[in-house]
Amino acid sequence: MISPMDLPVPAPLRVALLGCGVVGSQVARLLLESPRDLEARTGRRLALVGIGVRHPKAERPGIDPALLTGDLAALAAGADIVVEAIGGIEPARSLILAAIAAGASVVTANKELLAACGPELNAAAQKAGVDLYFEAAVAGAIPIVRPLRESLVGDEITTVMGIVNGTTNYILDQMTTDGLSFSAALVQAQALGFAEADPTADIDGYDAAAKASIIASLAFHTEVAGADVHREGIAAVTDEDIKAAASLGYVVKLLAVATLVGGGERVSVRVHPAMVPADHPLAMVRGGYNAVFVESRNAGRLMFLGPGAGGAPTASAVMGDLVTVARNRNRGTYGPAPTPYTHRPVAPIADAVTSYYLSLPVHDAPGVLAKVASVFASHDVSIAAVRQTQLPDQPGAALLGIMTHAARDGEVHDTIAELKTDGRAVIGQIRHMRVEGV
Amino acid sequence: MISPMDLPVPAPLRVALLGCGVVGSQVARLLLESPRDLEARTGRRLALVGIGVRHPKAERPGIDPALLTGDLAALAAGADIVVEAIGGIEPARSLILAAIAAGASVVTANKELLAACGPELNAAAQKAGVDLYFEAAVAGAIPIVRPLRESLVGDEITTVMGIVNGTTNYILDQMTTDGLSFSAALVQAQALGFAEADPTADIDGYDAAAKASIIASLAFHTEVAGADVHREGIAAVTDEDIKAAASLGYVVKLLAVATLVGGGERVSVRVHPAMVPADHPLAMVRGGYNAVFVESRNAGRLMFLGPGAGGAPTASAVMGDLVTVARNRNRGTYGPAPTPYTHRPVAPIADAVTSYYLSLPVHDAPGVLAKVASVFASHDVSIAAVRQTQLPDQPGAALLGIMTHAARDGEVHDTIAELKTDGRAVIGQIRHMRVEGV
Repeated sequence: MISPMDLPVPAPLRVALLGCGVVGSQVARLLLESPRDLEARTGRRLALVGIGVRHPKAERPGIDPALLTGDLAALAAGADIVVEAIGGIEPARSLILAAIAAGASVVTANKELLAACGPELNAAAQKAGVDLYFEAAVAGAIPIVRPLRESLVGDEITTVMGIVNGTTNYILDQMTTDGLSFSAALVQAQALGFAEADPTADIDGYDAAAKASIIASLAFHTEVAGADVHREGIAAVTDEDIKAAASLGYVVKLLAVATLVGGGERVSVRVHPAMVPADHPLAMVRGGYNAVFVESRNAGRLMFLGPGAGGAPTASAVMGDLVTVARNRNRGTYGPAPTPYTHRPVAPIADAVTSYYLSLPVHDAPGVLAKVASVFASHDVSIAAVRQTQLPDQPGAALLGIMTHAARDGEVHDTIAELKTDGRAVIGQIRHMRVEGV
Repeated sequence: MISPMDLPVPAPLRVALLGCGVVGSQVARLLLESPRDLEARTGRRLALVGIGVRHPKAERPGIDPALLTGDLAALAAGADIVVEAIGGIEPARSLILAAIAAGASVVTANKELLAACGPELNAAAQKAGVDLYFEAAVAGAIPIVRPLRESLVGDEITTVMGIVNGTTNYILDQMTTDGLSFSAALVQAQALGFAEADPTADIDGYDAAAKASIIASLAFHTEVAGADVHREGIAAVTDEDIKAAASLGYVVKLLAVATLVGGGERVSVRVHPAMVPADHPLAMVRGGYNAVFVESRNAGRLMFLGPGAGGAPTASAVMGDLVTVARNRNRGTYGPAPTPYTHRPVAPIADAVTSYYLSLPVHDAPGVLAKVASVFASHDVSIAAVRQTQLPDQPGAALLGIMTHAARDGEVHDTIAELKTDGRAVIGQIRHMRVEGV
């Protein structure tokens, strides 16, 4: 079936693979199993010259032991292209910088490293005239880096909203469909392998924040570090929050949001749970899937959906980058690099502009709604809708559900703080959640 | 806010725009309104040197009349990059070939031309060492060409299914949500500007078939012409079909399907109405939106969603290509070109493998189901489910709804032909529709 084109036969491109875990082992498999397809697509043969691992003596099914080495620095030094799949900051950072300095191109899936040291790595690659590609670092197999860097490069992106962590999406999905509590859903996710034994990076939003910083940097041509991303995890989301959202026609999702504020002069980048309308494309993203929703001035509303993690999907993204980087190298050139020419500061969370849903237990008495509404008004927070329900087990009390229009985040929190201090109206804990996609 | 990097200032890249209609006028606007952003992203200034139109004396708001010319060939001959937005085969083909021969790179949104002459144009571009980019030709603003060409180039795509025509999706959507007949929905779509006065290209599937040929060529590294695509439009879809589908939990969509058959040695490329499960991501694509669903061996299931047509969205895709092509040119290189190295023949529709839903009016008598089932079995068509309903206005008659497992398309049609000839069981018109995404 396959008849490769007649090509001149230069020396193969030497590929060094660092790491042979969940992703690395799949990259090795793909490199080894279809060499002729890869050659036809690249225009040149790709030779896997070695796999750098911590324990080179350990047996790995399907991998020739002669490929394994514990000397990652020496392996990377002899390569044309280095694929980094070890994760974490060090030694990944030093290995990549050394490879770039030696003239190698680099493909990485390391979101943590990019969120912490992206500008340093990108600058090094540009100075050396080599590629640094990282499609696999955000949302697994879903092409999002390339669309932001290239497809939409002639447009003005205004908002990116993503479900970029499969573990938290799985947990929230289970809470929604099966009515589980957060902790029960977490235990189930761990039992099924969807959540790690230490789920902090996922649950507390660190993983999503790293991805949000990469997305925001590309979308807005600026530099956003992972540490600059406002971060709220899902541990405080209750089954009552999810039921209340459902009763209003909303679904609770952990969102990574990157948007412009202050007339486009600053960026707001944040990770937090949010209520999303049930008919919004992001609401239908189920289980461990990821999705990234992009709004731009001319293209309008786009969404990219797919598996956000896993060895084979992530390896697919790595291989796409590897072939692209190899093609570039074969022609003595390199691809588009991030151009952080706008230098937009990251706005504090208080300056984010979002809608909120608040749930307030109040005295069921005349004048209470007027009193509550006046507090909102004094902070310039406009109310979009109010719903009052009786609390059957609490005579004399009612629950006010208030949906606000978009307002400064800081003003909403000031409103809540003021309401809390006034025991004549509010008689219990005020619950609140941001609302996106309306 | 914007502080462009310090760059050497070479001569600007000369951009010639051919056509100033719905798409061309938006491209002109975007080129003229943010020159410094485009320069920062490209690394070089883009100068719109002229716009070729049929009537250069006609007034066009926002366009300097000095830019307009009726001599498209002369305009293209003096350009570094030619943006073709006139559509149709000629003179677009000759203008593009002349521009390529003169060393210009080309960006086009012309699906009809690519479906008819893609291999000729791609070969000319590769011979000349210039770019031919066409993201805007398929699914408007949705990045699909680049993901297929680059992001998934290290993977093995097995199926691409798309809703790639907004007019037909709007009409089917109206039939589904408002219960309209096909002709009533078409009249409404025309009144609202969603369908043209002569809707043949959309309704009969010609537009979708052109896009399917481009998608299939990229996904399977082969050459598929628009004329080779099996094509069935939506004019024969009735409101009864849509109601029957809904009662089974399905939605009717016009799909462009490209998939491998015969162990991957041939491609099946087709456009036809199909029943899609209501919980399939493609089922939620509403109104004029487009979506492309991709299944690949490693990445799994991906979907790309967005506005499939319109001036500004299509212009966004053109601008993304334009900046990419300009970056390449600025470095003296060119981007990845299609590599049709597999030469997979297009299989006849009879060799496509799909499920079907069939609706047969039959005598309501013992033994009839056994008789019908034996005809299916004799053609190796396996039945997945049967539902029998009484026909209230036809005593002695019943309606058999039969869902098949995946089978050769030709065998299903032979089954239908044989059932038609047997008046003892089937007593009226047999309706049938393919089922995808199960």
